[in-house]
Amino acid sequence: MFISFEGIDGSGKSTQARLLADALRAEGHEVVLTREPGGSRGAEDIRRLLVEGPPDRWSPETELLLFTAARRDHLERLIRPALDRGAWVVTDRFADSTRVYQGAARGAEQARLSDLVESLHRLVIGVEPDRTLVIDLDPAEALARATGRGTEAEDRYESMGLGFQLRLRAGFHDLARRHPARVRLIDGSGAAATVAARVRQALAAP
Amino acid sequence: MFISFEGIDGSGKSTQARLLADALRAEGHEVVLTREPGGSRGAEDIRRLLVEGPPDRWSPETELLLFTAARRDHLERLIRPALDRGAWVVTDRFADSTRVYQGAARGAEQARLSDLVESLHRLVIGVEPDRTLVIDLDPAEALARATGRGTEAEDRYESMGLGFQLRLRAGFHDLARRHPARVRLIDGSGAAATVAARVRQALAAP
Ligand SMILES: Nc1ncnc2c1ncn2[C@@H]1O[C@H](COP(=O)(O)OP(=O)(O)O)[C@@H](O)[C@H]1O
Ligand SMILES: Nc1ncnc2c1ncn2[C@@H]1O[C@H](COP(=O)(O)OP(=O)(O)O)[C@@H](O)[C@H]1O
Ligand SMILES: [Mg+2]
Ligand SMILES: [Mg+2]
Repeated sequence: MFISFEGIDGSGKSTQARLLADALRAEGHEVVLTREPGGSRGAEDIRRLLVEGPPDRWSPETELLLFTAARRDHLERLIRPALDRGAWVVTDRFADSTRVYQGAARGAEQARLSDLVESLHRLVIGVEPDRTLVIDLDPAEALARATGRGTEAEDRYESMGLGFQLRLRAGFHDLARRHPARVRLIDGSGAAATVAARVRQALAAP
Repeated sequence: MFISFEGIDGSGKSTQARLLADALRAEGHEVVLTREPGGSRGAEDIRRLLVEGPPDRWSPETELLLFTAARRDHLERLIRPALDRGAWVVTDRFADSTRVYQGAARGAEQARLSDLVESLHRLVIGVEPDRTLVIDLDPAEALARATGRGTEAEDRYESMGLGFQLRLRAGFHDLARRHPARVRLIDGSGAAATVAARVRQALAAP
């Protein structure tokens, strides 16, 4: 099985991906726990280009090509080989992040890029996870969890603003509505163990 | 005018691009002399990912995405702004290099990738130079020129072999045949100044 976790910044994706991997391993499965952007050696090298430097280092189109190059490497070098040998793959973000983040961008840019996102996906990625778990949380609550911990999520809230996170959340809701068989919305409130139990339920459901 | 130089390794592209830029400047034109992969700050950063590391660092598809990302950055940040302010742009390689190098690859890979090359070009590049000058030279002669100088061209002959350069040359001939208005084949034999005169003639011709 190929599982992805998605959601706004600070919703608990990384925490839940780790807890799921631990639980599956305890049941005797081989699990590859990974993340995007990055996940394979080449993709992590490309990730560095994406996360370092000033915010205007890349245009939206160039950034999209770099994300797609990283995803292709991740898929070829890590994900596919793991699935081929029967392992579970649990990834903290995959292609839906690109779709939803791009969709939450402002007007003109948004319209210009949405076709490109899907065209590139079709050309060189082509696969979706078997199941995608959106950890759904009110951005204000996610921010409160992150505040003072100096996390990546806190940085994102500072640089992008709460309004952007609200648009992202709506984008993830929309994604779940459009792909009900694959994408499941998980209530991200409450203790991590409580959310983890909801994740297991969602995976057990048909 | 947007001019590209193309041709096999060691044919004299860099030499002729420089000589043309010098001549145009002497006539009072603003000239931006550039090269691929690279040419803009971001593209040079991507170039480093492409030229460093072991030969199997990237799959052909990932490599193609990285080349395309670099080209998009080069186009947006250097080439288009220069053309918009009325400068000449002279580039040592552009999109035709990708087409011809990919076309000279071996069987299965070749067939698999040729559509992808054109699809990516159409999606995010879309432009061709006004005139493309293929510096045409017998690979054996190009190798002889390079031998002992420790040039990049010499390294490529060692790693890819003369047979590959012969296929490349055939690919550039084919390119010129398919795009007679844009692509001109320039005899690359003789002194650099002699070849430079042929380049000027080709640019003056309709
Ligand atoms: N259910 C939870 N309740 C309280 N805090 C949580 C919960 N899940 C995660 N956290 C904490 O919230 C912050 C963000 O969680 P994280 O898993 O890194 O989110 P994401 O990967 O979606 O950005 C971290 O500091 C994490 O320890
Ligand atoms: N017309 C020429 N005659 C002899 N040597 C040349 C000529 N043009 C270039 N060279 C030399 O041949 C080598 C390859 O030329 P270069 O311009 O770097 O080719 P490319 O950029 O196509 O690889 C360099 O050492 C260069 O100085
Ligand atoms: Mg995280
Ligand atoms: Mg050169």
